[in-house]
Amino acid sequence: VKNNRKEDLPFSMRGKSLLGQEMFKVLDKARRLEEEGIHIYHLELGNPRLQPPEEIIDACVSALKSLDVGYTSSAGHPSLRRALTLRYARSGQRAINMENVVISPANVIISQFLDLTCDRGDRVVLFTPAFPSYLAAATHIGLDVVGIALQSENGYDLTEQHIEAAISACPKAVIVNSANNPTGAVYSREILEHLALECHRHGIWLLSDETYGELCFGKMFYSLFPHDYPRLVIMSSFSKIFSIPGFRVGFSISHESVAEKLALSNSTLFSCLSAFAQLGCAAGLQVLDKYSAAIREYFAQRARECSNILNTSGSFRCMPPQSGFYIFLDIGRTGLDDFAFSARLLEEWQTAVTPGRSFGASYATSIRLATCGKYEDVIEGTHRVVRLAQELSV
Amino acid sequence: VKNNRKEDLPFSMRGKSLLGQEMFKVLDKARRLEEEGIHIYHLELGNPRLQPPEEIIDACVSALKSLDVGYTSSAGHPSLRRALTLRYARSGQRAINMENVVISPANVIISQFLDLTCDRGDRVVLFTPAFPSYLAAATHIGLDVVGIALQSENGYDLTEQHIEAAISACPKAVIVNSANNPTGAVYSREILEHLALECHRHGIWLLSDETYGELCFGKMFYSLFPHDYPRLVIMSSFSKIFSIPGFRVGFSISHESVAEKLALSNSTLFSCLSAFAQLGCAAGLQVLDKYSAAIREYFAQRARECSNILNTSGSFRCMPPQSGFYIFLDIGRTGLDDFAFSARLLEEWQTAVTPGRSFGASYATSIRLATCGKYEDVIEGTHRVVRLAQELSV
Repeated sequence: VKNNRKEDLPFSMRGKSLLGQEMFKVLDKARRLEEEGIHIYHLELGNPRLQPPEEIIDACVSALKSLDVGYTSSAGHPSLRRALTLRYARSGQRAINMENVVISPANVIISQFLDLTCDRGDRVVLFTPAFPSYLAAATHIGLDVVGIALQSENGYDLTEQHIEAAISACPKAVIVNSANNPTGAVYSREILEHLALECHRHGIWLLSDETYGELCFGKMFYSLFPHDYPRLVIMSSFSKIFSIPGFRVGFSISHESVAEKLALSNSTLFSCLSAFAQLGCAAGLQVLDKYSAAIREYFAQRARECSNILNTSGSFRCMPPQSGFYIFLDIGRTGLDDFAFSARLLEEWQTAVTPGRSFGASYATSIRLATCGKYEDVIEGTHRVVRLAQELSV
Repeated sequence: VKNNRKEDLPFSMRGKSLLGQEMFKVLDKARRLEEEGIHIYHLELGNPRLQPPEEIIDACVSALKSLDVGYTSSAGHPSLRRALTLRYARSGQRAINMENVVISPANVIISQFLDLTCDRGDRVVLFTPAFPSYLAAATHIGLDVVGIALQSENGYDLTEQHIEAAISACPKAVIVNSANNPTGAVYSREILEHLALECHRHGIWLLSDETYGELCFGKMFYSLFPHDYPRLVIMSSFSKIFSIPGFRVGFSISHESVAEKLALSNSTLFSCLSAFAQLGCAAGLQVLDKYSAAIREYFAQRARECSNILNTSGSFRCMPPQSGFYIFLDIGRTGLDDFAFSARLLEEWQTAVTPGRSFGASYATSIRLATCGKYEDVIEGTHRVVRLAQELSV
């Protein structure tokens, strides 16, 4: 049988427009170097390497040992959906029931949200810099992506002008992400409520990605959960708040008829998620408040420490993030663009970071550092970013 | 804030055309009855409840305990990709390397294959009755689905006439599934090679779903793996061969440039799968031959036993399947259609089965029984199918 390695295959439009996530490409490149025996300082992925709550590991192991390895509901394991319903209900701000909660990998929810709400050619608004999956998912299904640039001068905060620009673009959908990846900004209650109300008034779908909500230390987090707008979808993930990105479990809270579609999409796409992973997350929710208080403090300390290394070097100026574990760093003065800087950093300084253009086409003079890995590696990696800059005479 | 429970929301075309998998709806209904304390006989889902290889559980638990809970490669964990490469390479029929193997949930691969190869309006051919996810995935992205009906008289075998009809329909893609769900048919080497060659000659994409390949007992299984056609994608799953559907791990083998797209699609859609689940599957591959020999024998015995119950009842006539654990049963003589029969069976006889129309619009007089659940439940459930038929004076 003939081998056609070089054949140019006729992929579909969607097949041709796949972007993926740049930081997973960096991860693959870094892993190949590791296989050659080279130690790599991982600052590319938001891959927290803290000890997760032992309750999660124990519950997951126990479910595995009792052979809970069959199919479960497409909408999610009832125990986890119930636990989330109770957790959100305790705020007393809005009554929800299990029918509003659907369990899916958080990254899948982004694709599902755009897929359910937008047709090819429809417009979606992102506030940039933005998490790469928004652009990857939107591009994949052929949407017209309008990026509204936030300003570094005010810490990439969301303002009324940005919201006005978003609504004027007449989009089908908007995605907002507070606490923000990659900037670490946390938007105020007033501005988020304003955005949600404007979207509601104009019949625009709104995805509120609250993945980093539990990790705010510089400013109070505000969730859009209290607002029962039919076109508002809240999403979050267990990856970051429990330091278990490898569990691949997240969730959405939405209007019943949206939740029904999301569950149907799960059923069409991946049938269901592992019961054992979901039972682990359900056990974690019992200790979330205690655990998140501890890691918030921990990440605040890391953010200060890494910002200090960068700022005292004289080569960079960065504002410490108000949440999470990312630093979105301006490298303009080094004279290299994001891809060149990242490539040299990996090759010469064994340090992996994510190029700025992963977060929007106009961020060629930025890189993102993820400071949630092993402590020694993060500190040394940050020093190496400085050393490359100094080598470039900055 | 106003509650808009009844609002008619403006979903996208794709949002409106979501079908899901009927058997998961049956599962949800059955689970609700179970929550009321009613014992349900589960014959709806291919959810094997045999003891999986302990090597899998041990490896998975061990990875969890050593906190292997971070992100891994989007293309799959290198250990599992390497183990699969070695397993397929040992046949000596074709050289592949890790770059040809991508790890994804098997159900996702179906959507990805159609998504990468077909644009809205393009034609895809299915041989029916067919696994519901093919139709669900194709309908979701707006494909023109042509179902070519196989005949019950010859055990739903695939013939040259069916292939001729498939090619004449000028499709962009064809999906073939041997060993078959729901019919249990196993197609011959000659006919599968004929189909693959015809698709290759006409530039048609071909997905060969070989999920049940290890579970053939009535006839020898033939894999299309030896054929290195650039548009041929082989897929399989660990769910059925290891009795671990809840792990949600499957894999594809394809041309390098297709595999690259599949990995990019993983990255866009769900980032990556759990490392611990993949390490479990890699450990399982070491004992697959021994394990699959045992379960093949076991499922052959079950197929005989259940077919006997049905055939000796006088109410039904069915051919024992040649593979797997499904019986696609003609209920035409009961006077009820598939939905009515399934609904009464669940309500009056606490037995869950899948209506025939999940496998194609023309199967309103069939139901599918999955005989892989708990032994006592499967036998009693099969008796209850007979009892309902007898109640209907058949």
